[in-house]
Amino acid sequence: MSETVRVSSEKLLRFTTEVFERVRVPTAEAILIAESLVEADLTGVDSHGVSRIPIYVKRIETGVVNPASRLQILQEYPGAVIFDGCNSMGIVTGTRVMEYLLQKAETSGAVFATVRNSNHFGIAAFFTRRALAKDMVGFASSNAPSTMAPWGGIRPYLGTNPFSVAVPAGKQLPIVLDMATSVVAQGKIILAAKEGKQIPLGWAISKTGEPTTDPKEALEGTVLPFGGPKGYGIALLIDVLSGVLSGAAFGVHLNNMWNNFSDPQNVGHCFAAVDVKKFLPLEEFKAKIDQMILEIKGNPRAKGVEEIFLPGELEHRNRCRNLIEGIPMSKNVYEDLRQLGKRLGLAFD
Amino acid sequence: MSETVRVSSEKLLRFTTEVFERVRVPTAEAILIAESLVEADLTGVDSHGVSRIPIYVKRIETGVVNPASRLQILQEYPGAVIFDGCNSMGIVTGTRVMEYLLQKAETSGAVFATVRNSNHFGIAAFFTRRALAKDMVGFASSNAPSTMAPWGGIRPYLGTNPFSVAVPAGKQLPIVLDMATSVVAQGKIILAAKEGKQIPLGWAISKTGEPTTDPKEALEGTVLPFGGPKGYGIALLIDVLSGVLSGAAFGVHLNNMWNNFSDPQNVGHCFAAVDVKKFLPLEEFKAKIDQMILEIKGNPRAKGVEEIFLPGELEHRNRCRNLIEGIPMSKNVYEDLRQLGKRLGLAFD
Repeated sequence: MSETVRVSSEKLLRFTTEVFERVRVPTAEAILIAESLVEADLTGVDSHGVSRIPIYVKRIETGVVNPASRLQILQEYPGAVIFDGCNSMGIVTGTRVMEYLLQKAETSGAVFATVRNSNHFGIAAFFTRRALAKDMVGFASSNAPSTMAPWGGIRPYLGTNPFSVAVPAGKQLPIVLDMATSVVAQGKIILAAKEGKQIPLGWAISKTGEPTTDPKEALEGTVLPFGGPKGYGIALLIDVLSGVLSGAAFGVHLNNMWNNFSDPQNVGHCFAAVDVKKFLPLEEFKAKIDQMILEIKGNPRAKGVEEIFLPGELEHRNRCRNLIEGIPMSKNVYEDLRQLGKRLGLAFD
Repeated sequence: MSETVRVSSEKLLRFTTEVFERVRVPTAEAILIAESLVEADLTGVDSHGVSRIPIYVKRIETGVVNPASRLQILQEYPGAVIFDGCNSMGIVTGTRVMEYLLQKAETSGAVFATVRNSNHFGIAAFFTRRALAKDMVGFASSNAPSTMAPWGGIRPYLGTNPFSVAVPAGKQLPIVLDMATSVVAQGKIILAAKEGKQIPLGWAISKTGEPTTDPKEALEGTVLPFGGPKGYGIALLIDVLSGVLSGAAFGVHLNNMWNNFSDPQNVGHCFAAVDVKKFLPLEEFKAKIDQMILEIKGNPRAKGVEEIFLPGELEHRNRCRNLIEGIPMSKNVYEDLRQLGKRLGLAFD
């Protein structure tokens, strides 16, 4: 079950774009969705990659997600924008919001935005990386359907509520943190279940609160926050800002993407952009970030550690390898996509 | 050595204010410093309480910190402000910056600020709590002298880089997260060393990278980030924003408060304020936060867990108890303050 094949990213980009075009997503938006999913696979975040195509398509086909973006601005202030995603695809909504903020930050210096009525937005780094080309710092966060108990509890209340921050560097690679506030993204547990693999102890507890290595038990139970009560606190704040402040759903009131096809999810996001050159001369900032990166990589290492990494560095290496060797894909995911393609009249072989 | 006495908060407030007045801190600023330190003790964060008075005083007396605030605005944009703390007391600087942002957020909706040339700013929640009275969300972060190795390393590079977020509620207690990005604040290890106590395994490693329970070995070695590589990533980003972006020192270039009395620390901070009512009707926001809090507290509990807490709740309980019973203080700290008072001509008995 865990056998893998390698598929070229070009082929995946084309196929994914065509799939979404077939379900009436406008071409420019289908390309964005394809770019996000393939970028996730390229960087090794396969839980958020093309394995999500079938569920995204199913939600569009069942009419519970709008295929074409209808983003609206509800309010705008000098340092803040409030968006309504109008139940469009999260990846498209997030991209348009981030583009808007990157322009606004040129005059505002820094700008913060909330989004209500949205959907699963894929990898958060897909949005924050867009800030890098403009020499800005990007921030993105999202709430998610409840899979994680509050610290001390056993019933899911919070989502794995991820966030990402991207920071431009000079000659070094940019710093790109993208993390779930659970020990792992629930997507990794879903993928393990799909691939028939066990999960490590410490990722999740069963519905009775017992530690488990069975991904199916884990999905019925609750994933654990990273870093114990501190991670719980951060997950909670992401829901407060992305969910409550945005006017979206929060906690257990967020609808599940996987098993509810009658109600919109009403996911909420936050985004922010900070224009570096308004704070420091750009060359000074970049030189200092480079210096910081080199100093960290030069830190003496603990026994058994081969290299010290900055956030985003491993993803970059995955990307380089997978661009050349193709994206590794389990037979299960491969077969899912082949079947979907067949149904939509698209070849995947 | 671990014997404790109880001292009333009124007495500590008065004594602390007088101490700082004696070293030429203007009265209004001395009161702020006293309020922050006593608030830390009241809420149980004794690592950041009046035990810090001697080092704060020593830095003023050695001329390495300005006793009177000289805060400057370097640049201002619609959504951002860049401050220079001019080497004043961090607690005073942070308070003034936060007051400025709370006013600016009324028109900006959200505002972000950096501060360079500052000093240790005490508990971050002292600033974010100020947002609550104005029904705003407050954010504060600071870098700190290096005590924590990057993940996989053994030599301190990052500080324990704390941050706080405060969120207003309706009838429930506000949510106030205030945490170091290390497993514990270094102040707790310093206090353990002062009180001759051991520290739990997992807080820190020795200078050769071995786990240790000896606070002195820990202080020569490196504290560990909370949540492993994810906590390391967050600590790093706080230094990027509070240190590099602000134009302050960063990483190992931040001067140590405890043993360097010739150079300013050049600590950097970030602050932000978000005006809730610009995003949602205030009553709706507060009702939803109350609902969220009650739902979380009602989550079924794991075996052995008596109650599920929201961030800030335990601190609130400590505060209530310590206001009535007095602040618990180790004999060592008590004696330090008595001696300091004697030298400055102030009675502490």
